[in-house]
Amino acid sequence: MSDIVEALTAAFGATEVITGEAARERARSGWARLGAPLAIVRPRTTAEVSTILRLAHDHRQPVVPWGGLTGLVEGAYAEGAVALSLERMRAVREVDPVERTLTVEAGCPLESAAAAAEAAGLFLPIDIGARGSATVGGAISTNAGGNRVLRWGMMRESVLGLEAVLADGEVVTSLNTLVKNNAGYDLKHLFIGSEGTLGLVTRAVLRLRPRPTSQATAFVAVNRFDALPALLSAASAGLGGTLSAFEVMWADFYDLVTTPPAQGRAPLPRGAPYYVLLETLGSDAAADGERLETVLGEALAFGTITDAAIAKSEAERNAMWALRDDVGQTARNGPIYAFDVSLRIGEMEAYVAQVRAALGARWGEAASLTVFGHLGDGNLHLIAGVGARSPELQQEVEAAVYGPLASIGGSISAEHGVGLQKRAFLHLSRSPAEIALMRRLKTAMDPQGILNPGKIIAT
Amino acid sequence: MSDIVEALTAAFGATEVITGEAARERARSGWARLGAPLAIVRPRTTAEVSTILRLAHDHRQPVVPWGGLTGLVEGAYAEGAVALSLERMRAVREVDPVERTLTVEAGCPLESAAAAAEAAGLFLPIDIGARGSATVGGAISTNAGGNRVLRWGMMRESVLGLEAVLADGEVVTSLNTLVKNNAGYDLKHLFIGSEGTLGLVTRAVLRLRPRPTSQATAFVAVNRFDALPALLSAASAGLGGTLSAFEVMWADFYDLVTTPPAQGRAPLPRGAPYYVLLETLGSDAAADGERLETVLGEALAFGTITDAAIAKSEAERNAMWALRDDVGQTARNGPIYAFDVSLRIGEMEAYVAQVRAALGARWGEAASLTVFGHLGDGNLHLIAGVGARSPELQQEVEAAVYGPLASIGGSISAEHGVGLQKRAFLHLSRSPAEIALMRRLKTAMDPQGILNPGKIIAT
Ligand SMILES: Cc1cc2nc3c(=O)[nH]c(=O)nc-3n(C[C@H](O)[C@H](O)[C@H](O)COP(=O)(O)OP(=O)(O)OC[C@H]3O[C@@H](n4cnc5c(N)ncnc54)[C@H](O)[C@@H]3O)c2cc1C
Ligand SMILES: Cc1cc2nc3c(=O)[nH]c(=O)nc-3n(C[C@H](O)[C@H](O)[C@H](O)COP(=O)(O)OP(=O)(O)OC[C@H]3O[C@@H](n4cnc5c(N)ncnc54)[C@H](O)[C@@H]3O)c2cc1C
Repeated sequence: MSDIVEALTAAFGATEVITGEAARERARSGWARLGAPLAIVRPRTTAEVSTILRLAHDHRQPVVPWGGLTGLVEGAYAEGAVALSLERMRAVREVDPVERTLTVEAGCPLESAAAAAEAAGLFLPIDIGARGSATVGGAISTNAGGNRVLRWGMMRESVLGLEAVLADGEVVTSLNTLVKNNAGYDLKHLFIGSEGTLGLVTRAVLRLRPRPTSQATAFVAVNRFDALPALLSAASAGLGGTLSAFEVMWADFYDLVTTPPAQGRAPLPRGAPYYVLLETLGSDAAADGERLETVLGEALAFGTITDAAIAKSEAERNAMWALRDDVGQTARNGPIYAFDVSLRIGEMEAYVAQVRAALGARWGEAASLTVFGHLGDGNLHLIAGVGARSPELQQEVEAAVYGPLASIGGSISAEHGVGLQKRAFLHLSRSPAEIALMRRLKTAMDPQGILNPGKIIAT
Repeated sequence: MSDIVEALTAAFGATEVITGEAARERARSGWARLGAPLAIVRPRTTAEVSTILRLAHDHRQPVVPWGGLTGLVEGAYAEGAVALSLERMRAVREVDPVERTLTVEAGCPLESAAAAAEAAGLFLPIDIGARGSATVGGAISTNAGGNRVLRWGMMRESVLGLEAVLADGEVVTSLNTLVKNNAGYDLKHLFIGSEGTLGLVTRAVLRLRPRPTSQATAFVAVNRFDALPALLSAASAGLGGTLSAFEVMWADFYDLVTTPPAQGRAPLPRGAPYYVLLETLGSDAAADGERLETVLGEALAFGTITDAAIAKSEAERNAMWALRDDVGQTARNGPIYAFDVSLRIGEMEAYVAQVRAALGARWGEAASLTVFGHLGDGNLHLIAGVGARSPELQQEVEAAVYGPLASIGGSISAEHGVGLQKRAFLHLSRSPAEIALMRRLKTAMDPQGILNPGKIIAT
């Protein structure tokens, strides 16, 4: 038994420290590779988290935080490390309907947090497909995005305060509940989006919003790229703050999700190069619906859009969203490589063409590229297929997708983070001075390099 | 001539380095004490800022960033320091109407930045009374708030990227233009709200919003404190995302600004304990006005409010805002002490009563307390008078105002920052572990302690 496992066992008891095959078995459950952890520990309290980190610090033992393991960039890869799972720290501690705050333990699934908000007549705007498993701590550590960023921002904008345990076990309780608090450095930002490399998040105070009571959803066709930003502007301006989703599907994606074996039915005829799902969330069903009709009517008249369907029932709305969410179809014709990039809207058309051309030049008929995304946030998901899957092919595809981003100021990670998987490409989106400053922070916060080492930047 | 002045003179020329009486003269222009700077330098470029900091670093010479000098907490106090003024770096570099971004130099006044946004048909939501002088760099460094935080957040939420020069002169250009960018640590947050103690901000990319085209403003009377949060909830929910201001005035404030010599006329009869100015910004004047009427009509019916006036013209709207902005009246009956605190709305009534009682117990008839604030953000401004002004009295008044915040999790600074002035009270709002972590950051970023030393935390 290794020293650290012995120390953990002494502190928590033998049955509490999962090792060997049992640990490897559990490490098969993630969405991305998790490796073979030396041990898995599942603390129940912040004090226990502190104890684990103190022991790890004494033994210079790498520790990898585990939330819901839905991360897509190998951020929770724990080969040879102690995996610290938050699965037992999932309580909703407090909902304050007046201050509109929700205090939760970091292991609380997003879905449970959202349900607690809803039960209090309020609304947690963060919403991602993995909501049932992804945790509040994971969403904080990856600064998760999702479907409503356009209106309410990333996870960062929904965090008021948090508690974190530092590399040496020191607990920093900074459970601010105030929207405005300029009493010194706003320390929470160190931990949001740093993927567990600067501290372990144990609790958080989330900011809730008034619950929208009306929802209007439309699906439109657009026949040239530059009409997309024009429509976005017109919709943002004309819908007075209620526009909450602006999801674009390139024709390839639309065809895929409306062709069997996909279940989806096409709400508009095929043939347009782009389709957009727009949604408003508001408080006045009649007025909101009318405004959406007005905006779309004007867009039709101006030729910004060529066709439109407004959902007339909950079933129609769900059917529209089901198309957008049926991402699994992109894998039905063979192995795929999935990407999450961001770039200026004005660069998107040329960028997608460039990636498509590069894939075509290299793999000919075997190449495919399916594109969709949160266009309102500059965020595209690209799904590339080249007929096969291997580490070498992956590198080549990554080069084709990430390469062009450097010169146009795009980002290799819009919302999923860097983890291990994108680490080699960080220099395309960040300058040497920026990366040097990241290293300086990492060294200051974790001098021994035990917190999720090797993630984001190489050790 | 001191070594550093010699070095700066060698680098920039004698006429470019302001010293002696000329420097002291300029240091009389701030809203708070500035002290007597050793020298003032006014670089034109980021490279020049870098040179200054390199020289200062070599000479272990404290440097204090100067923006518009409208800060209210002695953050720009520069006794014996080199004041680095951004006054020559005020250019608007780029407005991108598609991406809705504005790139400016840090010395650009907020008002000029807002005008550039407006000229492009867009909107910079940050708006504070000092807009004509306060700079973008100052607003970033203090994480300024203002009148529209309720809807669009603090300055932090309007910053996409920035460029900063570190203590040793290293330039970190992180001019991100993307709403979503999770490619490693989001370094801008180190510099936002850190009052020039971790780096000198030289440029920024600001996020613009669609320009609202309709505005509806109302003034209402409320007869008990707990109706205020009820009204806020009802308005937030009922106005579907357009509520942009919720400014509360306690009766003392209302009486003051509607009594000669104040110019203001009372839009509603006096006598209520609270008055609220509500405003919506939207895109549909008819619908927005109707919704506001509905919300207020229901509030009257439920007894949440007891009286209401809706502005029927631009003149009436301006008259309502003029009351809120006529803060100067609070000084007309004698010297005052002004405070900017935040706390849970649910604690406000008891907190204000406690402060009022403490002042009354100590100063009797001479004590006055005038209260108003951005209630929707939990932010109160308290203006205390005790009949005279002295450093000793100030300390006593500060103790009375700040003391009760510790036990209720309030903040000694909602939006103005800490600077020198609130440093001694930081421990009331932040735990020893939080302050230790702030120190750790400061040491990592500025090991010699030359960047605005002594601000926020003692050196
Ligand atoms: C079907 C599906 C849909 C998705 N959709 C979206 C989407 O729309 N938008 C989006 O942004 N992401 C999306 N994701 C990615 C993923 O869900 C998010 O990154 C999520 O935030 C991860 O949460 P988790 O609890 O599963 O974290 P994990 O996967 O367990 O961990 C993610 C990273 O955070 C660290 N971490 C976890 N918990 C903590 C903690 N308490 N303290 C410190 N570090 C911690 C881990 O070490 C790791 O580096 C999706 C994933 C799937 C599988
Ligand atoms: C009439 C009036 C009304 C106000 N209303 C509000 C309000 O509603 N909300 C609000 O939040 N504040 C308000 N303020 C306070 C003040 O305007 C803000 O704090 C503002 O952001 C300061 O900007 P400035 O350019 O004047 O900064 P300065 O006063 O010059 O500096 C403020 C601090 O930031 C540092 N700093 C300045 N520029 C830089 C830079 N480029 N890089 C690094 N550090 C820098 C300074 O060293 C100092 O610590 C008001 C002030 C006045 C006088």
